[in-house]
Amino acid sequence: MIDRLQIQAFVERALMEDIGFCDLTAEIVIPKHATAEFAINARHAMVIAGIEIAGTVFSRYVPECKVELLVEDGTRATKGQVLARITGPARGMLSAERTALNILQHLSGIATLTSTYVEKIAGTKAVLLDTRKTTPGLRILEKHAAQVGGAKNHRLSLADGLMIKDNHIAVCGSIKAAVATAKKMIPVLTKIEVEADRLDQVAEALEAGADMILLDNMSNEMLREAVAMVKGKVPLEASGGVNLDTIRGIAETGVDYISVGRITQSAPAVDIGLDEIIRT
Amino acid sequence: MIDRLQIQAFVERALMEDIGFCDLTAEIVIPKHATAEFAINARHAMVIAGIEIAGTVFSRYVPECKVELLVEDGTRATKGQVLARITGPARGMLSAERTALNILQHLSGIATLTSTYVEKIAGTKAVLLDTRKTTPGLRILEKHAAQVGGAKNHRLSLADGLMIKDNHIAVCGSIKAAVATAKKMIPVLTKIEVEADRLDQVAEALEAGADMILLDNMSNEMLREAVAMVKGKVPLEASGGVNLDTIRGIAETGVDYISVGRITQSAPAVDIGLDEIIRT
Amino acid sequence: MIDRLQIQAFVERALMEDIGFCDLTAEIVIPKHATAEFAINARHAMVIAGIEIAGTVFSRYVPECKVELLVEDGTRATKGQVLARITGPARGMLSAERTALNILQHLSGIATLTSTYVEKIAGTKAVLLDTRKTTPGLRILEKHAAQVGGAKNHRLSLADGLMIKDNHIAVCGSIKAAVATAKKMIPVLTKIEVEADRLDQVAEALEAGADMILLDNMSNEMLREAVAMVKGKVPLEASGGVNLDTIRGIAETGVDYISVGRITQSAPAVDIGLDEIIRT
Amino acid sequence: MIDRLQIQAFVERALMEDIGFCDLTAEIVIPKHATAEFAINARHAMVIAGIEIAGTVFSRYVPECKVELLVEDGTRATKGQVLARITGPARGMLSAERTALNILQHLSGIATLTSTYVEKIAGTKAVLLDTRKTTPGLRILEKHAAQVGGAKNHRLSLADGLMIKDNHIAVCGSIKAAVATAKKMIPVLTKIEVEADRLDQVAEALEAGADMILLDNMSNEMLREAVAMVKGKVPLEASGGVNLDTIRGIAETGVDYISVGRITQSAPAVDIGLDEIIRT
Amino acid sequence: MIDRLQIQAFVERALMEDIGFCDLTAEIVIPKHATAEFAINARHAMVIAGIEIAGTVFSRYVPECKVELLVEDGTRATKGQVLARITGPARGMLSAERTALNILQHLSGIATLTSTYVEKIAGTKAVLLDTRKTTPGLRILEKHAAQVGGAKNHRLSLADGLMIKDNHIAVCGSIKAAVATAKKMIPVLTKIEVEADRLDQVAEALEAGADMILLDNMSNEMLREAVAMVKGKVPLEASGGVNLDTIRGIAETGVDYISVGRITQSAPAVDIGLDEIIRT
Amino acid sequence: MIDRLQIQAFVERALMEDIGFCDLTAEIVIPKHATAEFAINARHAMVIAGIEIAGTVFSRYVPECKVELLVEDGTRATKGQVLARITGPARGMLSAERTALNILQHLSGIATLTSTYVEKIAGTKAVLLDTRKTTPGLRILEKHAAQVGGAKNHRLSLADGLMIKDNHIAVCGSIKAAVATAKKMIPVLTKIEVEADRLDQVAEALEAGADMILLDNMSNEMLREAVAMVKGKVPLEASGGVNLDTIRGIAETGVDYISVGRITQSAPAVDIGLDEIIRT
Repeated sequence: MIDRLQIQAFVERALMEDIGFCDLTAEIVIPKHATAEFAINARHAMVIAGIEIAGTVFSRYVPECKVELLVEDGTRATKGQVLARITGPARGMLSAERTALNILQHLSGIATLTSTYVEKIAGTKAVLLDTRKTTPGLRILEKHAAQVGGAKNHRLSLADGLMIKDNHIAVCGSIKAAVATAKKMIPVLTKIEVEADRLDQVAEALEAGADMILLDNMSNEMLREAVAMVKGKVPLEASGGVNLDTIRGIAETGVDYISVGRITQSAPAVDIGLDEIIRT
Repeated sequence: MIDRLQIQAFVERALMEDIGFCDLTAEIVIPKHATAEFAINARHAMVIAGIEIAGTVFSRYVPECKVELLVEDGTRATKGQVLARITGPARGMLSAERTALNILQHLSGIATLTSTYVEKIAGTKAVLLDTRKTTPGLRILEKHAAQVGGAKNHRLSLADGLMIKDNHIAVCGSIKAAVATAKKMIPVLTKIEVEADRLDQVAEALEAGADMILLDNMSNEMLREAVAMVKGKVPLEASGGVNLDTIRGIAETGVDYISVGRITQSAPAVDIGLDEIIRT
Repeated sequence: MIDRLQIQAFVERALMEDIGFCDLTAEIVIPKHATAEFAINARHAMVIAGIEIAGTVFSRYVPECKVELLVEDGTRATKGQVLARITGPARGMLSAERTALNILQHLSGIATLTSTYVEKIAGTKAVLLDTRKTTPGLRILEKHAAQVGGAKNHRLSLADGLMIKDNHIAVCGSIKAAVATAKKMIPVLTKIEVEADRLDQVAEALEAGADMILLDNMSNEMLREAVAMVKGKVPLEASGGVNLDTIRGIAETGVDYISVGRITQSAPAVDIGLDEIIRT
Repeated sequence: MIDRLQIQAFVERALMEDIGFCDLTAEIVIPKHATAEFAINARHAMVIAGIEIAGTVFSRYVPECKVELLVEDGTRATKGQVLARITGPARGMLSAERTALNILQHLSGIATLTSTYVEKIAGTKAVLLDTRKTTPGLRILEKHAAQVGGAKNHRLSLADGLMIKDNHIAVCGSIKAAVATAKKMIPVLTKIEVEADRLDQVAEALEAGADMILLDNMSNEMLREAVAMVKGKVPLEASGGVNLDTIRGIAETGVDYISVGRITQSAPAVDIGLDEIIRT
Repeated sequence: MIDRLQIQAFVERALMEDIGFCDLTAEIVIPKHATAEFAINARHAMVIAGIEIAGTVFSRYVPECKVELLVEDGTRATKGQVLARITGPARGMLSAERTALNILQHLSGIATLTSTYVEKIAGTKAVLLDTRKTTPGLRILEKHAAQVGGAKNHRLSLADGLMIKDNHIAVCGSIKAAVATAKKMIPVLTKIEVEADRLDQVAEALEAGADMILLDNMSNEMLREAVAMVKGKVPLEASGGVNLDTIRGIAETGVDYISVGRITQSAPAVDIGLDEIIRT
Repeated sequence: MIDRLQIQAFVERALMEDIGFCDLTAEIVIPKHATAEFAINARHAMVIAGIEIAGTVFSRYVPECKVELLVEDGTRATKGQVLARITGPARGMLSAERTALNILQHLSGIATLTSTYVEKIAGTKAVLLDTRKTTPGLRILEKHAAQVGGAKNHRLSLADGLMIKDNHIAVCGSIKAAVATAKKMIPVLTKIEVEADRLDQVAEALEAGADMILLDNMSNEMLREAVAMVKGKVPLEASGGVNLDTIRGIAETGVDYISVGRITQSAPAVDIGLDEIIRT
């Protein structure tokens, strides 16, 4: 779910950053007419994200090369599985290789970690959410990877959702006043979420007509009370200090969503290799 | 060590990505003349990187605000330490907040992980190196963070160093032929590194006049033999499968450099908080 | 409600387009140190939109000049009312003049036409909505002007709202299936609107859990039936063939929203003049 | 008469503005391999402008789609006439649809209004001129549409023509001095136009060697006197307060050109529809 | 005569090109708080062009520095004359130095060579013209330098003047037909120049109503005949094979303009030095 | 040795600069379906550089045209030799023509002048070096042309090499201190060059571990002494006041490199013509 012009602009910027004025090694050491065969493979079990973008890196930089994708985003690859084959002019393919791998390893890392979180809450009604804690310049790519790994997306940007926090409430006087102002002004297909630190705020947010309530840093006990209080009238999102040890317990409180910054902000890259044959 | 125009361009792109058409919440809920005081603080011990860039996020977006940096890059912050204070118009500061934190948490995460690796090899002659395994669009920022954490930088881009790998050697016929071609063509302040998988390749690279040799995926035993063989004539870089458990042993073989992709590719974000007071 | 980086980028592009390589007349005919006083004034009654952006045109192009805004967006200016005064270096101010006026006349034209539509439905519960029928490159500015004129905003872009139309429904098999798929995939703060051409579709959309229903090209009779059927459970938007003659009747059917493409797509520019004094 | 790189850049910016991060509806609701057939048609009589650009929107965004243009710019389309057919992948075509229509409706609106003005002065020697009163970012497109509708273009930007106004004259001391300075400095293929409010200024401009004279806000009587005085030595442009009621009278005074800001600044969009069939 | 936004964009691109990711030397070797004093001086007699742009390089990159310009464009500097003094933070000033000098040496080189050509034709009525033979990316800067050196500008771009050449004439059937088509379509402040290789073409161009005639590669004898034939009705431009030896003879034929590609395309850089004092 | 994305971006900017809003002449005078055959030819003996880029200008602007390159960069073309043939749509080819020629004439001018310098030092061990004295925006293209002409490249940007000059040494206290700091901080594949004005500085630089020494403005006698002193331990670069008369003598001193700013900064354009046939 990423616009193709966004992908193209991202890929061009990424290639220009890594290559700079020129790839000295490829230009000097690789003969102009050498050809290459690349096989990209998973070095351990992982969830793939970004395979089309990685393919685009090669086809954008070397339009003459042939890109064959053997998996699609969301594939649970096994150790050793070949993900893609690329054949074509060696020079350009070697220049593009690192950029393609950097993207694929990063996004698959996010999808893989996300899927681990998702598995932890399997069987509960809770759904994992991503956040705006993403790497600058990679917002939509990382949110795509999170979705591929099984999460739903929270806001894509500050322009597509309202989130009223305690400070906002303080300056507006009350949740009710803040929500009322917001309702009058927001685009009609946009929802309003209110952050609550205490149960009375949950009640107030509900009454004010919030579309969704963020339960921030609450104990599981409080979460359960909030769930009981709201009775499914609006979705509840639990947030704060969620990790692989705590998420199951949180999910079992009955909240609708659990948001986790770590899946985009702290996912280790997966190990994806590239076997290459070069022919002159 | 980052050019200021690079930083400005990065910061503008990051802000525009996160904000989009407008920050609906700030525009709607925060009164135009409200002011804010932000205190950015470390929630655990960490090495700081990117504090000036985070400051630039605020001053670029809200030229009227006052940014006071209390640490500099490289500072080992303690839990609870205040890193910066920003005061000024609330709306713009709230819109810029997430972008500033995303950058600071990411780069400080890299600096902190890097410093952990560096500590592991303290007392040996080995120096930690970063790689080109960086997040697309953040190359120079992540390399800066690695340097702040105690690593040295390997190539910034494909345009500022030559790296001759086995495949290059294969198409050129021999290490000697590849290095000779390279020497004739490269910019004069640029070095040539040759990758060796075997000890005979180390000998050949040395004889060919390589400026530096990469020992790829060698056992510590082999590394020691390579060190003995090269006798300090050119620096040796060990690479492949390095982690916090193995790095000390590798360092003790006597190699000059150890390169680690994980420090830029898999560093978890550190936890940095932002306390805010808003006044109308 | 427009991000300031968006405004800056827009203003720079607009200036560069109008000026090109250089303003031949100002550079050749106006002495370097001449100064100017500009008074921007409304030549008839109008609703002002874009006054800050017009001011930014001058201050961006001529940082030395002093910009004094005498009204704000939303002001109902009377014939002859002075809207802003700018004083400073004549050359740059003359070069920027046309760009500032083009923006101000266009956006105030939209706000003024919008307010005329809004007045027509005063006293009903219906709220005027804008659409995505905007001039390419001016989306957020024109939506801002519509809001200033009294309308609410519909989607800012295709990324912040779902709109399921008849064709979508056809390929999905049913409204129910389409909405179910959508609910599973969309960002959590984003709403789903379903387009209905017939009353049975309204019922189906309601049952499927649509957040809002678009009643497309329905007669006022049908609109009334839809309103009766939905009983306020979700907001209803009437759309299609709305003009100044028909809008009141539509509003009186009890729909929540009426969307009108013309307010952004066909608003004539208002007449705003600029009196200037130049001194050498 | 628009450079193709200008068109491409405009189309890309327009698409990215409307789509944003992604077209949620198309991505979620439309199956990946669905195909579509679009027929673009005129819903009333109109003069077409921008049909190639509208085609470029589709072919740029969806290179796989087939674009068949059935008219060309300048065509006087009748009610119901099919203007273009596009077939190809449904998702991308749906994402591009609104952008293509927005451009086509806007530019055809300008061409249509322009042609109405042109018809009013048929049989006189007067030629309609456009102005720099265009929408920021659309200068060359709107001037193209005006030309398609039968107008000639005045300056494209401030860099390709000199226009000496009363204020310029005031700072230079006299029309003669201003024109002399201008002649010495301007690019050799560029003309100088002088604005005259009074008949003595017309005489002075003529004597000073102006290439063209702008008669600003003169009565038809004064226009006739100016025509008699100038005797065809240089072209005369009438300007100010021109509308569909007054233009014929102005044209009959014998002026060479009549410039009208409204044709670009206040043309209502024409109604162009898009019939679509989607197949899975 | 260059738009300031054009200059700013040019300067930013130039700095980013020369500095790249960072200025390694300045960042590593120069202490952060060191200050510098630069004196830019002419190492031989020359005509200065680009001094404001050179100043902008410093002030854009190091807003804190103080730039004092001691000459202005057009100054005939003598050997050793100090052109500007800059004082401020040493690091940034050192990083910007080469870019500033490259611009100043290049543009002053053009102005100086141009002035040499201009001197050769002093006392004749001929005026020197530049051409579109400029370095890509520097069109307006080089044309500015040519003007500073005493030339007039020919077209700035293909959008601000018509030039009908033999091939155009061939496809149109005749000069008359080509000019007639052109007159009908061009913007009203734009002139039409016709290229003539033979005297009968000069006559035909004159009759067709060309605004200016280019006499291409004619002998001085032919030029004289053309001058006699045209009798000052339109300006005549001589072109082709003009150099410092031939230009006087050409000028004495009585032509109005002589265009020379070499002044922009082949001007050697002048020698401008920079004396620097750095203090820690 | 230029990255293809760099070339594409350069070519697009160059075309947009020369064409502007539109090529009035081609659009108005050349029929839409006219075709053209262009033959690009050398009008005197020269070394070709930029022929692929010139070809890219045509193929980027007119994808339908056929570009046949008959030489490659480095070819020593003879007078009259045809370098390339292009056939296709006349309009677009005419619009692109000047941009292609401007690039080709400029870069071949650099290659030709460079080769003249290189011939002067034939038979010595000295190698010609380029500098950072390049035209802003054309750095990598001009360095490519210099290499094509037989020179080696010095630094591409300030990010890929360290150059310690007298002022740097002054602020660091000594060459030794400056080099030590530099060694600790620079990327590992980057070399350090030290500038020496006196022989004792050469000795100090050698001892400090400089990778290369720049002998600035030394007499040939001093150069010989420096060569004798360094004994080939590091390469020596002579710089300052080098021209075609002096270079041979400098080369015979035994230095390794001689750097010359003139080859990029003051190379006159070569004369390359374009014969065209246009058919309707």
